[in-house]
Amino acid sequence: MKKKIRNGDNVLLYVNPRRTYLVKAEKGKSLHTHKGFVPYDSLIGKEYGVRTASNLGIEFVALRPSLKDFIFKVQRRTQIMYPKDIALIVMFSGIGPGSKVVEAGTGAGALTTALAHYVKPTGRVYSYEIRTEFMQTALKNLEKASVARFVEIKNQDITQGIAETSVDAVILDLATPWLVVSHAFSALKGSGTIVSFSPTIDQVIKMVEALRESKFVDIETIETLLRGMQIERGKTRPETLMTAHTGYITFARKSLGK
Amino acid sequence: MKKKIRNGDNVLLYVNPRRTYLVKAEKGKSLHTHKGFVPYDSLIGKEYGVRTASNLGIEFVALRPSLKDFIFKVQRRTQIMYPKDIALIVMFSGIGPGSKVVEAGTGAGALTTALAHYVKPTGRVYSYEIRTEFMQTALKNLEKASVARFVEIKNQDITQGIAETSVDAVILDLATPWLVVSHAFSALKGSGTIVSFSPTIDQVIKMVEALRESKFVDIETIETLLRGMQIERGKTRPETLMTAHTGYITFARKSLGK
Amino acid sequence: MKKKIRNGDNVLLYVNPRRTYLVKAEKGKSLHTHKGFVPYDSLIGKEYGVRTASNLGIEFVALRPSLKDFIFKVQRRTQIMYPKDIALIVMFSGIGPGSKVVEAGTGAGALTTALAHYVKPTGRVYSYEIRTEFMQTALKNLEKASVARFVEIKNQDITQGIAETSVDAVILDLATPWLVVSHAFSALKGSGTIVSFSPTIDQVIKMVEALRESKFVDIETIETLLRGMQIERGKTRPETLMTAHTGYITFARKSLGK
Amino acid sequence: MKKKIRNGDNVLLYVNPRRTYLVKAEKGKSLHTHKGFVPYDSLIGKEYGVRTASNLGIEFVALRPSLKDFIFKVQRRTQIMYPKDIALIVMFSGIGPGSKVVEAGTGAGALTTALAHYVKPTGRVYSYEIRTEFMQTALKNLEKASVARFVEIKNQDITQGIAETSVDAVILDLATPWLVVSHAFSALKGSGTIVSFSPTIDQVIKMVEALRESKFVDIETIETLLRGMQIERGKTRPETLMTAHTGYITFARKSLGK
Repeated sequence: MKKKIRNGDNVLLYVNPRRTYLVKAEKGKSLHTHKGFVPYDSLIGKEYGVRTASNLGIEFVALRPSLKDFIFKVQRRTQIMYPKDIALIVMFSGIGPGSKVVEAGTGAGALTTALAHYVKPTGRVYSYEIRTEFMQTALKNLEKASVARFVEIKNQDITQGIAETSVDAVILDLATPWLVVSHAFSALKGSGTIVSFSPTIDQVIKMVEALRESKFVDIETIETLLRGMQIERGKTRPETLMTAHTGYITFARKSLGK
Repeated sequence: MKKKIRNGDNVLLYVNPRRTYLVKAEKGKSLHTHKGFVPYDSLIGKEYGVRTASNLGIEFVALRPSLKDFIFKVQRRTQIMYPKDIALIVMFSGIGPGSKVVEAGTGAGALTTALAHYVKPTGRVYSYEIRTEFMQTALKNLEKASVARFVEIKNQDITQGIAETSVDAVILDLATPWLVVSHAFSALKGSGTIVSFSPTIDQVIKMVEALRESKFVDIETIETLLRGMQIERGKTRPETLMTAHTGYITFARKSLGK
Repeated sequence: MKKKIRNGDNVLLYVNPRRTYLVKAEKGKSLHTHKGFVPYDSLIGKEYGVRTASNLGIEFVALRPSLKDFIFKVQRRTQIMYPKDIALIVMFSGIGPGSKVVEAGTGAGALTTALAHYVKPTGRVYSYEIRTEFMQTALKNLEKASVARFVEIKNQDITQGIAETSVDAVILDLATPWLVVSHAFSALKGSGTIVSFSPTIDQVIKMVEALRESKFVDIETIETLLRGMQIERGKTRPETLMTAHTGYITFARKSLGK
Repeated sequence: MKKKIRNGDNVLLYVNPRRTYLVKAEKGKSLHTHKGFVPYDSLIGKEYGVRTASNLGIEFVALRPSLKDFIFKVQRRTQIMYPKDIALIVMFSGIGPGSKVVEAGTGAGALTTALAHYVKPTGRVYSYEIRTEFMQTALKNLEKASVARFVEIKNQDITQGIAETSVDAVILDLATPWLVVSHAFSALKGSGTIVSFSPTIDQVIKMVEALRESKFVDIETIETLLRGMQIERGKTRPETLMTAHTGYITFARKSLGK
């Protein structure tokens, strides 16, 4: 695994938790910010983690972007999913290196990036998206995260059917997931997982009813809350504001049957 | 990826969300429960997901155990970590296939199983554990989840030092994580991640202070809450009880420097 | 306000937060527990707050029962409401000393006790209950909390109508609150408050729809979570378990119309 | 209880949940807003709850301000307490009509207003505040809520002592509550309640230690979360943002003895 910053590499320039810049470190170019400018030539050839100072004397740390950074920095032309939900979806879906996953819709590619990250190098993500305007954005984001080659974005309507078969997981982030239940059932291996993310409780009810009518078992719906902490001796406390709701996550597994 | 249940395979026999059995399906043997017995011969050779009935007529579904199942079914000789926390630790640590990870302590191997699952097949987990009585349990759990070959359990005290170098992440679930900060700093690559899980706020404060004194940046502490939902038209509501607290998770990244 | 414990007074005998006894301190009698017995004669004539020891040497503190204690100790023949919800209902309903309040159903009288406590001495609570078996329990609980004279329990079906007029608040804890909306509208003063407590989201949706169809404004639905903390230097942390859900509370105010 | 709006009365002009105006309805004057102006003469003599239209045709409802409104509309020269916390403090403190309560600090008078509301007409609140600049604001807010005559604001430092004796509850919202514990103990009746509100966990630990060293029992610390719901058939979901933390509330009761 490479450690030196090379010409053209992605770098996360970190000033503080609220001020980070995900950039492509190109020879001869610079990052210009309110905190001064940072020439990339001062980074290229150095190890990730190196500190540098802007012309105004502000310290920048050149971090190697991780999955979380790529997700947070996805171009926000659509509502992106939160890392806390992506983390649960990935783990509860049971996928890992080598898995074959169907996803819809692609959106800006935040969840797609994560799925690709975890199924690589031998797995594959088939991501359905009917809105052509998103496909370009998603592709750019996947390329930035170096996972585009593990993903096939399909400009097709998943409510009309899924072409893939014997897939390990079908992961849905769309307005009408219940229209995909029977297609997902056909596409999944026995014991495969379906996951659906929905902001409203009405969507969850319709989805769970559709799952129960099909031969899915182990149906479960959860929501998660993530709260930040301010840690400082004498002033330790939870943060003042938090996201109160992103969406409900529903999981189920395919049973085969009589 | 195999789909048929073979002699000796792990199977999750599912009756309902509160009644599941993680078994080894061995020829000629059976599962005996209050819901009747299920001969494994009725499963071997069938596809995962198949339904079968016990001699009492109760339906069992033979699911393929996923990472989550292995974690939940870890032999509980120690306090295990919750999947919700493991999911966040994995995602925020930035690891993936190929990562080199140091962990302590191993405990019953719940987190170790997850780490191994996500770094395989080319990555590796070095897991420190001083309590010899846990090593056997952990090893058994790793073998059951088929990830033992990606893990090296070390009967050493991580507060005395870390032998590995250029690691991508150091992940700590122990009583005094602050004693490991300088060792972790040496072991990590530039920009590598340290993660610490602690039940008490006092531990978090000491850990964050140690991280600040070292050259770690992007220090963040969070906690998560997971709430189950009961979904049934006309009766939809959050579940009555939940786990109010498991622990705080602290993340930071190594900067290099002057 | 009296301070001495007199023959026949209610006393809360406190051993620790999980072991408290709400008793009537009668001359010549005793409390018998696993922690030994405590003769009430050792308390009568003493000030509330006094410590005494059982025959086994365990210390008991004789506290004066507060509203919260009466609510928690209500005989649980029905699902009682939690103090956290009662507190919000009382405050957001806008009631106080002198208010005229209609409530349904009475149940075991937990909420009724709180309402009476806050409207006394000049206000009044009219509490509807169709299940005669509860009326006796509720009356006993109200008497124990010394607030029975501020309450009129009515063995009537509130979905058939409300006899009172010009009331300040109508507070509902029943399965079909939407059937009471028009009656509540007639009973309330202009600007008066209706409050409804429901465990399921389906009930909340029906209730809010009924309120919107009527001339109620400022309609708001909330839920609250209460988490206990374990405070001990070096071991401070949230408690492990909590109640994840009791119910949703909906508030609205009556507007007069054209 | 009066029902008609009279010259000089407080009125809450309601447009929608995010747009309300707490005004004094004076003859010949008007409210001027972006939604048009509303002459108070159109309200005076009408019943509370009446609807009126601004000159731009926007509907305003003239509600009678309740305790919650006065608290939310307190002039925010200081951090005010949230109604959710005030509700819990009031209920768990055990106070009610007739109680004698000591409070510090007064701040803008939000909590003071609530305490006065619930102890009136025969109880009394003694509120300590050393910052003279707040006393005027608090007094104005108490007068607006018509509860000033039940409160005595004292320009004294409560950490130097409490003059009152035999009080039912001492309620603290200040930076160093532990400095008041021994004074509170002297001021309280046997079995009386002390309550402390603190944003940081460090304050809570010091406070609980001070309570344990004194003869307080039944010591408990909680925090509450309040989440709003968006109720609309087909779009029902929790609100997107919430306050993640206001403060921890600690309760304890005075025991006498040895």
